[in-house]
Amino acid sequence: MSEKKVAVIMGSDSDWKVVKACVDELAAMHIPTQVKIMSAHRTPEQAAAFAKSARAEGFGVLIAAAGMAAHLAGALAANTTLPVIGIPIKGGALDGLDALLATVMMPSGIPVATVALNGAKNAAVLAAQILAVEDERLALLLDEKRREMARQIEEKNEALQKELAGQG
Amino acid sequence: MSEKKVAVIMGSDSDWKVVKACVDELAAMHIPTQVKIMSAHRTPEQAAAFAKSARAEGFGVLIAAAGMAAHLAGALAANTTLPVIGIPIKGGALDGLDALLATVMMPSGIPVATVALNGAKNAAVLAAQILAVEDERLALLLDEKRREMARQIEEKNEALQKELAGQG
Amino acid sequence: MSEKKVAVIMGSDSDWKVVKACVDELAAMHIPTQVKIMSAHRTPEQAAAFAKSARAEGFGVLIAAAGMAAHLAGALAANTTLPVIGIPIKGGALDGLDALLATVMMPSGIPVATVALNGAKNAAVLAAQILAVEDERLALLLDEKRREMARQIEEKNEALQKELAGQG
Amino acid sequence: MSEKKVAVIMGSDSDWKVVKACVDELAAMHIPTQVKIMSAHRTPEQAAAFAKSARAEGFGVLIAAAGMAAHLAGALAANTTLPVIGIPIKGGALDGLDALLATVMMPSGIPVATVALNGAKNAAVLAAQILAVEDERLALLLDEKRREMARQIEEKNEALQKELAGQG
Amino acid sequence: MSEKKVAVIMGSDSDWKVVKACVDELAAMHIPTQVKIMSAHRTPEQAAAFAKSARAEGFGVLIAAAGMAAHLAGALAANTTLPVIGIPIKGGALDGLDALLATVMMPSGIPVATVALNGAKNAAVLAAQILAVEDERLALLLDEKRREMARQIEEKNEALQKELAGQG
Amino acid sequence: MSEKKVAVIMGSDSDWKVVKACVDELAAMHIPTQVKIMSAHRTPEQAAAFAKSARAEGFGVLIAAAGMAAHLAGALAANTTLPVIGIPIKGGALDGLDALLATVMMPSGIPVATVALNGAKNAAVLAAQILAVEDERLALLLDEKRREMARQIEEKNEALQKELAGQG
Amino acid sequence: MSEKKVAVIMGSDSDWKVVKACVDELAAMHIPTQVKIMSAHRTPEQAAAFAKSARAEGFGVLIAAAGMAAHLAGALAANTTLPVIGIPIKGGALDGLDALLATVMMPSGIPVATVALNGAKNAAVLAAQILAVEDERLALLLDEKRREMARQIEEKNEALQKELAGQG
Amino acid sequence: MSEKKVAVIMGSDSDWKVVKACVDELAAMHIPTQVKIMSAHRTPEQAAAFAKSARAEGFGVLIAAAGMAAHLAGALAANTTLPVIGIPIKGGALDGLDALLATVMMPSGIPVATVALNGAKNAAVLAAQILAVEDERLALLLDEKRREMARQIEEKNEALQKELAGQG
Repeated sequence: MSEKKVAVIMGSDSDWKVVKACVDELAAMHIPTQVKIMSAHRTPEQAAAFAKSARAEGFGVLIAAAGMAAHLAGALAANTTLPVIGIPIKGGALDGLDALLATVMMPSGIPVATVALNGAKNAAVLAAQILAVEDERLALLLDEKRREMARQIEEKNEALQKELAGQG
Repeated sequence: MSEKKVAVIMGSDSDWKVVKACVDELAAMHIPTQVKIMSAHRTPEQAAAFAKSARAEGFGVLIAAAGMAAHLAGALAANTTLPVIGIPIKGGALDGLDALLATVMMPSGIPVATVALNGAKNAAVLAAQILAVEDERLALLLDEKRREMARQIEEKNEALQKELAGQG
Repeated sequence: MSEKKVAVIMGSDSDWKVVKACVDELAAMHIPTQVKIMSAHRTPEQAAAFAKSARAEGFGVLIAAAGMAAHLAGALAANTTLPVIGIPIKGGALDGLDALLATVMMPSGIPVATVALNGAKNAAVLAAQILAVEDERLALLLDEKRREMARQIEEKNEALQKELAGQG
Repeated sequence: MSEKKVAVIMGSDSDWKVVKACVDELAAMHIPTQVKIMSAHRTPEQAAAFAKSARAEGFGVLIAAAGMAAHLAGALAANTTLPVIGIPIKGGALDGLDALLATVMMPSGIPVATVALNGAKNAAVLAAQILAVEDERLALLLDEKRREMARQIEEKNEALQKELAGQG
Repeated sequence: MSEKKVAVIMGSDSDWKVVKACVDELAAMHIPTQVKIMSAHRTPEQAAAFAKSARAEGFGVLIAAAGMAAHLAGALAANTTLPVIGIPIKGGALDGLDALLATVMMPSGIPVATVALNGAKNAAVLAAQILAVEDERLALLLDEKRREMARQIEEKNEALQKELAGQG
Repeated sequence: MSEKKVAVIMGSDSDWKVVKACVDELAAMHIPTQVKIMSAHRTPEQAAAFAKSARAEGFGVLIAAAGMAAHLAGALAANTTLPVIGIPIKGGALDGLDALLATVMMPSGIPVATVALNGAKNAAVLAAQILAVEDERLALLLDEKRREMARQIEEKNEALQKELAGQG
Repeated sequence: MSEKKVAVIMGSDSDWKVVKACVDELAAMHIPTQVKIMSAHRTPEQAAAFAKSARAEGFGVLIAAAGMAAHLAGALAANTTLPVIGIPIKGGALDGLDALLATVMMPSGIPVATVALNGAKNAAVLAAQILAVEDERLALLLDEKRREMARQIEEKNEALQKELAGQG
Repeated sequence: MSEKKVAVIMGSDSDWKVVKACVDELAAMHIPTQVKIMSAHRTPEQAAAFAKSARAEGFGVLIAAAGMAAHLAGALAANTTLPVIGIPIKGGALDGLDALLATVMMPSGIPVATVALNGAKNAAVLAAQILAVEDERLALLLDEKRREMARQIEEKNEALQKELAGQG
């Protein structure tokens, strides 16, 4: 599969309960992954240094998860031209709207590819989709997983039909 | 530069005044681009068919712009495993929050890489960043553009210093 | 009663705990109902195919329940001219505002008849009201149910008066 | 076409600039329509009396447009079991969110079929869809209009392709 | 004390757990109070009839509590020129913002005196303030209660000082 | 008419363009009115002193209009037990939601009777309704004005019918 | 360390569970602190008097915590030119947005230095930063605490690496 | 007056039309001020370097103005323990709520003293209040300005009284 690594950065160890689903999904796709705790506000130098060297270190995509005034994804994006995926974490103001807006409303020139609130698994899928643009085997794996999702829905639908028929 | 094409899809021709900045930015980076008007609701079959064949047709990234209950990016993402970038367009409810949430809050398994409200230029930059993961020349171009942005800020800063000094 | 059937579609089996109230209400009115799990994003072809053939299959109204970037009702409405009722499900961002806006803010030409957040029972009542436009017996049943609701309020009011009098 | 009439009620004559699109669309489909100004708050008796007699007067669907604390659709729905479509009008608080929530968040038993903010045309389409459940000719007309919408999108797309090719 | 009665109306018996604080506060001020369950949507005629005769029946203020698309206060206000106080109840959309906006954003000519979300006690205080405009004894009671509130704050402050000093 | 005066206080002279409608409405009802500019933040002592002496000075109701962190109504209410009506003024954050919440979300014991955003006329009507509780002539005037509003709606409705008939 | 005292004022003893973190942080920095319960609405005179004399009493910074229509910080700021820090407390409307806007949206001339919802610890840090402008020892302490925060993040990161390595 | 300088940093030259009021107010108080354009995302190194050396360079307070995902104030605060004042600029999403939340919802340990949306003048006043903690002359100037504000309100009030009397 892809030679490029994915970095998963979180602003606080309290985000791990959400972020773990991202790391698990990347592992299930055998994508080499590095996980780190780094804060845009508490360890700004480390975050900037990591982003600056990330392409040279063999990373293809950076994923950043943060809540509240979620600056982490933007702080990484300011220091690299690799694609940066942002996971806004719920828990601050307005049911997480603070983190969503702080992640997605980036100024012109410095995008962050934002996924849903707590959308950790989807950040992994998006990272895989990015790596699969030039990786046919990973693209085939993503297609297979997509078909598997459809099969699961159909199985659940069949189970529901039986349950409802049993009640009739 | 990259061999892969980028598709820019908009739900209505009224979105063109926003979307043009995306197409212009891609052109400035010499990335081959196809622009289309297709609607998740008014031409759902065409949208699905386009997304299904997009990888085989040589596309590397799809960009979708839509407002209100902005389903276009999600409808494309449902039919491809290529990365899909969503541009939520202002103009519906709550200053565009409807389009932002309808684009970003995707269910597990089907991500949309969402940029800022009306963030057309950033969608182009993000598409380029994705293609640049395996395209060193494009990566160098992105780095150069980033340095150019910094130079512009510094020039504006110097102009401001002169203006303020002139007032002193 | 009405010859036309009602379809109740949900995007995920996790919506069943909300949607069941809709199915129960339709059953209580003896309206023939089909329940299905289909996803706008995970099984887009099935959803489109179902909607396209729904009128010919004898359906009169489609009800769709979904949360987050709730595209299901809109995806069905894009593929049929039958009335489609949308139930936005709570649980994503902003206490369900994401699902409400994604369901109701449809573009010109493709309406979704949206009911309240988690308004499963009201979706059933609205479907019955639609079928009752040309079904006098169903209209009489709806009127009777309305009077029953008023009677229940009055009973609760009387119980409250007794309780308060007992405290005096 | 359908024998049933549609009533279009607005809470204030200032809503006419939005509501006119609804009346025009109904006229274009040759659906018999009655337009009225009635207020849930300023003429509550007339509104209640109108709704109570609407089914007997030959109406099949009521459409109500109101802004701010938009009670009109709900006040009609409280007095009839005909389907009531609500058009929330922009202009009060939070870019019209007040009218949207006051229209859609109806209590159990009394639904209002809510369309988008200022969604006057879609209210007409939804009314036609409801009447078309038992009116094959109207259903065919709606299908034809849907195909026409798709053709218009495709024409706009072709015009765009020519414009872009001309610039190349 | 005041000869005028206060009516406390709630849209559903499920509101009683909030509304009880209002009734208790009125009782503590010896203001004659009548409590009723009446719904703007399920018993619209009773609500209108009650409001129409309220002044003649000796009421001086009506208090209405309702959630979601909270029309009850407005429906009463549409049928009387007595002051109507609205208590928006939490529990619908956006943490109760639906009920707040549906209560407060009344059209010109028909005000509702709105208090805080779940502000049941304050509705009672406001009703008493209204009756006290021409009732000196009630005004003196309100002043005494205000001083009592200040005394309680000061006592809590003193208790806190002791607690903090004990820790020092 | 009523012997009691109404005070209309605004936080800034820039609020006058909204507040004038309140003063005009009170004048049209021949209610003695005093208008003042006083700020909860810029002239806190004057605001407190005015509220403290207001009942003794013959005022029956205080009306306060303010925007942004609209503390004026609450600051007056903290210093009197007269009913205080708050008019939240649009123009700060979130289309005036800041002023609405700062006015209405008062703590237990100190209510502010809040009307709609920019609801200046309704503040006057509510003040009149409060004074009319013990003033039969004012109550009759309010009833007459209510009937006049209904007549105006009916006239507008008739004009609309003629306009539509003329187009037929 | 600094000679100036910090006052921590809360509107209600129920705020203590949030505010305690502020007092603890100030104590950990050996900053002399006075804690008080005073309400903008229930003890307005005490609050105004306290603010007026605060500079003369040796205070350098006032911190005020309040929820809902959070006027406390603004009421203090109206009566002193000392810097006033506002802590908006969650629990009213919209997940605390009421308190945030009522604290931060102050009119021109009377600022409140607002920290995050429930941001009690940060209010203490900000107060210390203000006192440290002219207090070198306190500035050194703040720098040391900052480095300690970075060390803690790095330790957590190392622990995570070990945990992940152990799973490999 | 104070020896310490104030830095006013803005993220883009387009913010100058708002920020100028801040610089003018500082100049009116004779506080030495340095104005700069620096971006958290486009010139992250310069921003970090500036903040790191700010205390040594003689600054006492930093003021940062930014819109959208407004990270500038937080990025400065991450690199200094000087007090940082944030001015959220309107213009992105939700009428500026994005900038407000991105500025104020800072994580524990790194506060930003946030003022109102576009509250440029108040940022200057707050900076002066901070410097005045240890600068008696500046404190006296702030007190004098406060009294001047009150006088202006009183003059406007008198003008209004004359205007209203002239109409009587």
